[in-house]
Amino acid sequence: MTATFILGGARSGKSARAQALAEAAGAARVYIATAEALDEEMEARIARHKADRGAGWRTVETPLDLVPALKAAAASVVLVDCLTLWLSNLMHHGRDVGAETHALCAFLGQCRGEVILVSNEVGLGLVPETPLGRAFRDAQGRLNQQVAAACDVVEFVAAGLPLRLKG
Amino acid sequence: MTATFILGGARSGKSARAQALAEAAGAARVYIATAEALDEEMEARIARHKADRGAGWRTVETPLDLVPALKAAAASVVLVDCLTLWLSNLMHHGRDVGAETHALCAFLGQCRGEVILVSNEVGLGLVPETPLGRAFRDAQGRLNQQVAAACDVVEFVAAGLPLRLKG
Amino acid sequence: MTATFILGGARSGKSARAQALAEAAGAARVYIATAEALDEEMEARIARHKADRGAGWRTVETPLDLVPALKAAAASVVLVDCLTLWLSNLMHHGRDVGAETHALCAFLGQCRGEVILVSNEVGLGLVPETPLGRAFRDAQGRLNQQVAAACDVVEFVAAGLPLRLKG
Repeated sequence: MTATFILGGARSGKSARAQALAEAAGAARVYIATAEALDEEMEARIARHKADRGAGWRTVETPLDLVPALKAAAASVVLVDCLTLWLSNLMHHGRDVGAETHALCAFLGQCRGEVILVSNEVGLGLVPETPLGRAFRDAQGRLNQQVAAACDVVEFVAAGLPLRLKG
Repeated sequence: MTATFILGGARSGKSARAQALAEAAGAARVYIATAEALDEEMEARIARHKADRGAGWRTVETPLDLVPALKAAAASVVLVDCLTLWLSNLMHHGRDVGAETHALCAFLGQCRGEVILVSNEVGLGLVPETPLGRAFRDAQGRLNQQVAAACDVVEFVAAGLPLRLKG
Repeated sequence: MTATFILGGARSGKSARAQALAEAAGAARVYIATAEALDEEMEARIARHKADRGAGWRTVETPLDLVPALKAAAASVVLVDCLTLWLSNLMHHGRDVGAETHALCAFLGQCRGEVILVSNEVGLGLVPETPLGRAFRDAQGRLNQQVAAACDVVEFVAAGLPLRLKG
């Protein structure tokens, strides 16, 4: 089993990179989508991602309960796209982010099969102007550090090109 | 012929890196400037960049028609600085960004001589608050992925230091 | 003597990385904190950083006069955390950023003992909306380039993982 963490910016090609890794890893694949279609812009983005993915994927929409979804996925290859929307959903619904992250990392440390997780790096701009923006940025940074520590392989993707950070 | 793509943040030293590569590559050099001096702040920035460049360069100001300018540059070394302003100009003037990008990548795949292109990575902060900001960020990410795929060498520059992503 | 520059985003793990390097480098350590506790949010952040640091550190609070503090630190290992707050303080108090940066780099070129400096990369998002935001981003980029040039080792940290840029 390998847990792989793909980190990158918006439209950096990180989802395509994660999908290519998943497709190389096995034929029975589950795509855990954490997005919630709350408005038309997001709906269009989700539909575009689905079309990009093509056949060979079973999709599970999981805005919040990620670890149960991971445990239920009996497939050999699971792709979680992405932890940034998951974090946003957790915060929006008042969940305990620390406890949820801890449970995810514990799962990653003991799971069998291939798990590939995608997340955004969001801390490389100026300090956000709102307290919520700063809180989200800090929470995302902490989550990324913890997941990176729990994974075997970590890549940073820019302009579609992966750079190995770990493994 | 080599097409080289230099990606980096604002004031990361990416233009200086690109200029150093161009100066090492040949003596007959064309600088394709995509900036338009629309206000005093931008005018000062353009003048500072020109002064930094020094002698040995012929400058062509090309806010929109990049591929014709590349074809017209009979020099052995061409530097395009930068694709972020070019994209911004294309969007501002209602041009077809997909078609323009496709033409640029087709040119890169068949050109002779050295071409060095500079672009910004802009997707590593929080989600922009405006639809225009999000649209620009997405368009820049797609453009960077396509140009990176069409180039032989890709570097990411931070604090003046290049990191090889491809080639 | 080695001067090491640790660059990264917000909550990227750059401070923890710098502290680990300092702890490996020697037992007599000085922590130069450039933060000023101007509001409760910042005060909580400073207290959290102090608690994370643990024993074995002497802390010197130095919002502005960094080079004198570095000269006064007779310890073998000095950690400066961080240059982003230092820059912000310099600009806020109307100091000459170019002259201060020049003095810092001159010190780094001749100092004995270990110096580790932490800074933020802030130029990888969209163009900031305010002139002050753009001025700060440009000043931070220039400072990072100059300090990186003056240091022996430069690392970029993402998700807690260091990537060597120099040295």
